[in-house]
Amino acid sequence: MKKRLFAIAIAAAGIPLLAGAQQFSKPEDAIKYRQSSLFIMGQHVGLLGAMANDKSPFDPAQAQASAEIVQTGGTLPWNGFVPGSDKGAPTKARAVIWTDPGKFNAAKERLLSVLPKLAAAAGTGDKAQLRQAFGETGAACKNCHDDFRAR
Amino acid sequence: MKKRLFAIAIAAAGIPLLAGAQQFSKPEDAIKYRQSSLFIMGQHVGLLGAMANDKSPFDPAQAQASAEIVQTGGTLPWNGFVPGSDKGAPTKARAVIWTDPGKFNAAKERLLSVLPKLAAAAGTGDKAQLRQAFGETGAACKNCHDDFRAR
Repeated sequence: MKKRLFAIAIAAAGIPLLAGAQQFSKPEDAIKYRQSSLFIMGQHVGLLGAMANDKSPFDPAQAQASAEIVQTGGTLPWNGFVPGSDKGAPTKARAVIWTDPGKFNAAKERLLSVLPKLAAAAGTGDKAQLRQAFGETGAACKNCHDDFRAR
Repeated sequence: MKKRLFAIAIAAAGIPLLAGAQQFSKPEDAIKYRQSSLFIMGQHVGLLGAMANDKSPFDPAQAQASAEIVQTGGTLPWNGFVPGSDKGAPTKARAVIWTDPGKFNAAKERLLSVLPKLAAAAGTGDKAQLRQAFGETGAACKNCHDDFRAR
C-alpha cells in the first residue's frame, strides 16, 4: 500500500522526467540510492584529495580511475531526490531541494560541469592540474552541501 | 587507533593490489562501499528486469542508461572486500570470500563478462536480446550470492 502511494505521489507531481530519471518502489530506496552514490563519490573524492594534498602518493592511474568513478557517480544522486523522498529513512536532505528545484538544479549543473575537468586533470599526472581541479570539485560539493544538506 | 590497525591488516595481508584497488580508513567504510555499489546495481537490475519481464514499458534509452550504470557499478564492489572487512558493520559477506579468493574472483569475472552484453543488448531496443542478457546477468548475480552472501 505504501509503495502504491509513493508511485502515485511521483506521478501526481507531474515533473518532467530527466534522462536517467527513474522510479523507486519506496521512498527509502530513493534515499538509499542517493546516499549510496554520494558515499561512493565521497570515498573517491577522499582518495583524490589525499593525493592532491600530499597525504598519499600520487598514482595517476588510480587518480584517473577514481575521478572517472566520481564523474559517473555524479550523475546518479539527483535521481534519488524524487518528490516524496524527503522522509522514509534518515536523511539530511533539506526541504529546499523540493521547494526550490531551480536552485538545486543549478548546484547539480555546477558539479557536473566540474567533474570532466577533474577526470581530465587526474589523468595527466600533473599534480598542479589535479590540485586545481580538485579545488573546484570540492567547492562544488560544498556549494551544494551548504544549501541542501542539514548539518 | 582502529584506523591504523586496519591499514596494517591490509598491508600485512600482502595481497597484490588490483587495478582500482583502494584503501579505506576503516572497515565499516569498505563494507558501506561494497553495499552501496551493490544497492545501486540492484536498483538498476530491478528496472531492467521489469522491462525484460513486461512489468514496465521497454524504454531502450532508459534501459541502456541503467545497463551502463550496472556495468560501471559492477567494477566497484570487489574493492570493498578488503581483508579485515568481514566485520565492523552489519554485513552478509561470508568468510569464504577471504578464505577462497580464487572462487570469489571467478564469480566476479563471470559477472564482469556478462555486463557488457547486457549493456549492448539493452541499447538495441530488441526485447528478446534484453531478456536473454538479463537472464545471464541474473544468473551471474545469483551464482555469487548463493556462495558468498549469507541468507
